[in-house]
Amino acid sequence: MRVVVAGAAGYIGGELLRLLIGHPEVEVVGAISSRFPGKRVDGVHPNLRASTDLLFCSADEVTECDAVFLALPHRAVMTQIEYWTQRAKLVIDLTGDFRLNDTKVFERYYGSEHQAPHLLDAFVPGLPELHRERLRGADLISVPGCMATAGVLALHPLVAHELIDTQAGVQLDARTGSSGSGSTAGPANLHAERSGAMRVFAPTGHRHEAEISQHLGMPAAMTATGVEAVRGVQTIAHTTLRPGVGKSDLRRAFREQYAEEPFVRVVAHQRGIFRYPDPKILLGSNYCDVGYALDEDTGRLTAIGALDNLVKGGAGNAVQCLNIRMGWPETYGLTFPGLHPV
Amino acid sequence: MRVVVAGAAGYIGGELLRLLIGHPEVEVVGAISSRFPGKRVDGVHPNLRASTDLLFCSADEVTECDAVFLALPHRAVMTQIEYWTQRAKLVIDLTGDFRLNDTKVFERYYGSEHQAPHLLDAFVPGLPELHRERLRGADLISVPGCMATAGVLALHPLVAHELIDTQAGVQLDARTGSSGSGSTAGPANLHAERSGAMRVFAPTGHRHEAEISQHLGMPAAMTATGVEAVRGVQTIAHTTLRPGVGKSDLRRAFREQYAEEPFVRVVAHQRGIFRYPDPKILLGSNYCDVGYALDEDTGRLTAIGALDNLVKGGAGNAVQCLNIRMGWPETYGLTFPGLHPV
Amino acid sequence: MRVVVAGAAGYIGGELLRLLIGHPEVEVVGAISSRFPGKRVDGVHPNLRASTDLLFCSADEVTECDAVFLALPHRAVMTQIEYWTQRAKLVIDLTGDFRLNDTKVFERYYGSEHQAPHLLDAFVPGLPELHRERLRGADLISVPGCMATAGVLALHPLVAHELIDTQAGVQLDARTGSSGSGSTAGPANLHAERSGAMRVFAPTGHRHEAEISQHLGMPAAMTATGVEAVRGVQTIAHTTLRPGVGKSDLRRAFREQYAEEPFVRVVAHQRGIFRYPDPKILLGSNYCDVGYALDEDTGRLTAIGALDNLVKGGAGNAVQCLNIRMGWPETYGLTFPGLHPV
Amino acid sequence: MRVVVAGAAGYIGGELLRLLIGHPEVEVVGAISSRFPGKRVDGVHPNLRASTDLLFCSADEVTECDAVFLALPHRAVMTQIEYWTQRAKLVIDLTGDFRLNDTKVFERYYGSEHQAPHLLDAFVPGLPELHRERLRGADLISVPGCMATAGVLALHPLVAHELIDTQAGVQLDARTGSSGSGSTAGPANLHAERSGAMRVFAPTGHRHEAEISQHLGMPAAMTATGVEAVRGVQTIAHTTLRPGVGKSDLRRAFREQYAEEPFVRVVAHQRGIFRYPDPKILLGSNYCDVGYALDEDTGRLTAIGALDNLVKGGAGNAVQCLNIRMGWPETYGLTFPGLHPV
Repeated sequence: MRVVVAGAAGYIGGELLRLLIGHPEVEVVGAISSRFPGKRVDGVHPNLRASTDLLFCSADEVTECDAVFLALPHRAVMTQIEYWTQRAKLVIDLTGDFRLNDTKVFERYYGSEHQAPHLLDAFVPGLPELHRERLRGADLISVPGCMATAGVLALHPLVAHELIDTQAGVQLDARTGSSGSGSTAGPANLHAERSGAMRVFAPTGHRHEAEISQHLGMPAAMTATGVEAVRGVQTIAHTTLRPGVGKSDLRRAFREQYAEEPFVRVVAHQRGIFRYPDPKILLGSNYCDVGYALDEDTGRLTAIGALDNLVKGGAGNAVQCLNIRMGWPETYGLTFPGLHPV
Repeated sequence: MRVVVAGAAGYIGGELLRLLIGHPEVEVVGAISSRFPGKRVDGVHPNLRASTDLLFCSADEVTECDAVFLALPHRAVMTQIEYWTQRAKLVIDLTGDFRLNDTKVFERYYGSEHQAPHLLDAFVPGLPELHRERLRGADLISVPGCMATAGVLALHPLVAHELIDTQAGVQLDARTGSSGSGSTAGPANLHAERSGAMRVFAPTGHRHEAEISQHLGMPAAMTATGVEAVRGVQTIAHTTLRPGVGKSDLRRAFREQYAEEPFVRVVAHQRGIFRYPDPKILLGSNYCDVGYALDEDTGRLTAIGALDNLVKGGAGNAVQCLNIRMGWPETYGLTFPGLHPV
Repeated sequence: MRVVVAGAAGYIGGELLRLLIGHPEVEVVGAISSRFPGKRVDGVHPNLRASTDLLFCSADEVTECDAVFLALPHRAVMTQIEYWTQRAKLVIDLTGDFRLNDTKVFERYYGSEHQAPHLLDAFVPGLPELHRERLRGADLISVPGCMATAGVLALHPLVAHELIDTQAGVQLDARTGSSGSGSTAGPANLHAERSGAMRVFAPTGHRHEAEISQHLGMPAAMTATGVEAVRGVQTIAHTTLRPGVGKSDLRRAFREQYAEEPFVRVVAHQRGIFRYPDPKILLGSNYCDVGYALDEDTGRLTAIGALDNLVKGGAGNAVQCLNIRMGWPETYGLTFPGLHPV
Repeated sequence: MRVVVAGAAGYIGGELLRLLIGHPEVEVVGAISSRFPGKRVDGVHPNLRASTDLLFCSADEVTECDAVFLALPHRAVMTQIEYWTQRAKLVIDLTGDFRLNDTKVFERYYGSEHQAPHLLDAFVPGLPELHRERLRGADLISVPGCMATAGVLALHPLVAHELIDTQAGVQLDARTGSSGSGSTAGPANLHAERSGAMRVFAPTGHRHEAEISQHLGMPAAMTATGVEAVRGVQTIAHTTLRPGVGKSDLRRAFREQYAEEPFVRVVAHQRGIFRYPDPKILLGSNYCDVGYALDEDTGRLTAIGALDNLVKGGAGNAVQCLNIRMGWPETYGLTFPGLHPV
């Protein structure tokens, strides 16, 4: 299968290239970069040295392909979506442009009017754990935000099994590494400024809360903090169980929801160093680890999600969607388990 | 003034020594360590090389002194408190033993019966911002936990000015560096395991939530996560303002509460890299930075506190209490402003 | 092929398990740990959750196998080597016990008399780039030390092409992450002590200098420093070119030496962020990147090597040796290219 | 005393402000920034919140002052030096412009012709440990580079006591944190790129080697690597002792050289976690720790220096020079001892 990556010089773009170059059914026929056309891909992504001789190209050098991955800046895709649908049978968008299906919500969180509202319903959310069947026939896929994916997957069993009162809403606390700011970030992301920081960059109203709210059908409020890490997202959701719900219900809900999922692991242990989901051991892997802890006295539940923002939070999730869409084994190109220690 | 530090080989103990050696009115006459009696203090605390020739001693080498700081393991002080009150006029306890004034709450959070319940009321909380007047006459002082201090100081103006409904309770999310685990921590704190971690070590029921609840008179639930840092605590509190309360009320409450405080700064900026409290720039300093952000659509408020857990979250706060108790300028020994970048 | 890993709960052991579990020709039939017999492997190596249900076993539970990897403490293998040769046709030792072929040198660097000197010549050095042909028929393989591998591979083309005067000797400066100290390291490796350190732990006489000296046939002196990293080794070698040798000779030597090597990349660029070998982008990969820079005025040459100490510096290199020994494609199980950014 | 800082928005500039604001004899009357004139100083240097209300100004707002510190880009000072000597009685330059007294060497290392060669001899090197007497009467002071200071102070006793053969030259290996790249660094210093790196940015010919060579009167070659740290420089010098020189000569040389120095500590211990100089415990302090280790078999000596590049490697050293010049106690404003752990 011939695929193209647009925005290939960015961090998500580079991760798409790493995964697609290692994919048994895919040939990368275009790596588009407006900044580096004609330059070697491995000059920007040095981990790909000896893996590829590909050069970046400009968008107009691409004629047609079977699939295109759009790892572009937010708000860039909605104005050029027809350009891409004409060139590729399958479009997988990794920006925020087609994640929210309500134009008013989009405007509130992205600060601009939506430029292609007629296509919002045509995009299938790139969340296999919630939308696998729809993805099998999708030609337009919108991969969710990294924190949204972690938050949704941690809370989904609670909602699906009606263990929490969705009307009460949910408060989330998200932590993220610096790669989420992208390869063109400014002075605030200089190593000397960002290193060791606990930077509350979105004390209220982070965009991904809108996605969580939409996917779960409940109000969601999220605080986002940059912590010391390059990769990695962790979300902590604070909720309260419905009266009468207990530990065994929780166990059953998580097990039933995720027993067959290839990339979700339930991590909630009494012992050991890694008792709850921690992105540290997920670098490079496509897992989203989810877990929970219950305060039995009060019914308060903490639901935790962790992932590598560039993989399950972006490029890896996109490749998983591709695999589903094409009917390939879902783990193709995604078998790296992560490292420990690291 | 002649002071003794018990637990002087630990991280809080070392920080007490750093601050007290640099204090213009204090002479350190004893640095007690059960592990290293007779060894040089600067062999364990290498930052004090050239600052002191002090040797560690054992507890029984100390006869009497004007003040003792107890930087011992939790539950060790309550069984030996009379030993110390006989040797020192002023006892400043940095453990959790006398922080909670309800023995049942103590038992629930510390898992043991309290051994000196008759003294619980005699200890004055070492929180100058809430108890300065009582501290002026205190002979027994109990310094609060690091996350509790950050959480209480961030929320105190909201409670004192009745901007939030205390009955609704508060949910907190705390992040902390590795030094809080102490110098005798086990394999879970090996660098290879702890580096780059986002380790939810207390998903529910962290001890410091009981202190926050007690100080503020409202239910508090806290999740605690170890993030990549050696020093530093940040707490994020999620609350909702009372109807009708707005931004100007918030500004006034924080300003009035802290305008005269030497070690609390209100940090809530629209611009710049450090817009909200971040412990990164507080290493070594006695500041607790507090800030807040309001989602005006929903009334949700995020209140943020940050400090160096070994300074304002421990040793520095203890020295500030000493200064208040002795009638000295409150900043004696505590003038280091912190570094940037670092 | 049925393989056993001894020392499977350590960091090298865990990395062997990760690589062997993902290897298309290998079945792991034993993961020996004296600390955790009967416990789940993924309880210690959380990255292997969902990849394996293996339990650790004790050594005496292993009857026979096709190959055993010994990831044990130094000096443990030489006293039990016959035990292992009776149980496995192929023994791959990852300790220092059979790396040095001169017992006097061994004694000087390891501080004990060698317990199996008669076997020293029987072990083939596990360095494919220097000993590939011998490895094809080897039944006893001794994998070199992590810093030795980086240092040797960076210098080997210079020696092989006689570009430097070996009698002049070589001075090396090595930097390493904390995982090299192992999973049972003591208080000096606590996160609070080790984080951000530049710790010269071997200012002179590091053991790996003896290996470098032996492999290259020239005196070598090495200084080793622990820097902030969990994984990663970098060695900087300072040498002087023979008179008349120039840049084109250097280029040719490195190209000819490594053009066909699957796991050595020559990295010496004029531009870009990653101009010289940096272990940052090698985490989890089996590459050893090598590079060099010449001061043309003085003839001084800096030769640089970088690798992941647990992979090409240990477990990965061992698997590469296995592949060579068995006649399999050399990259089996070792295709992960590394990440960027990370 | 009325002092001005030019380049006050940079990292060295900020550190000068921190130290000078806390200095008992100094009043900062101007903080010049071409980027932020009129903006609050603590908006750029958040650690100074509550310490100062100073605003940045432009250069032409400064009329005259007693001393000016020039923390400007390299090559900027030599073209404007007369402007400053007309405005300030004492000029302390922190750039590289007046560090090298040979214009040819300057051209080779800085790539431009010197614009004020007539003043090269008028500048006194800001190295108290070598030039204290000359500094007492100096009106023009040139503070050395951070790595040069660490390297020179580690080697100086060996040269002064003639323990090494200076004709043999010296090879140095320097490691540095990211703050040395300054607050206007580009994409190579993004956190995601720089974090965890071991980046050999100067494999040969780093500028500071020319300073070391000049100060010690011997050929010096230096390799410089950026490692994971914001602050901190460590230099490792590889030398060989003259025949007959032994450990006691080394001890005596270092002790005699530095016994009276307020900011140099000799660190060479057999035990403990911090046996050799490590910048980790020097953050914010003005110490340069120096140490050494001898391989008695070969006579090879490793001499190690460590400091905070922004303090003893820049701003702190400059303030120490000011103190000497003014006849004040040398430790004024420089008493912070550093932190542990951190």
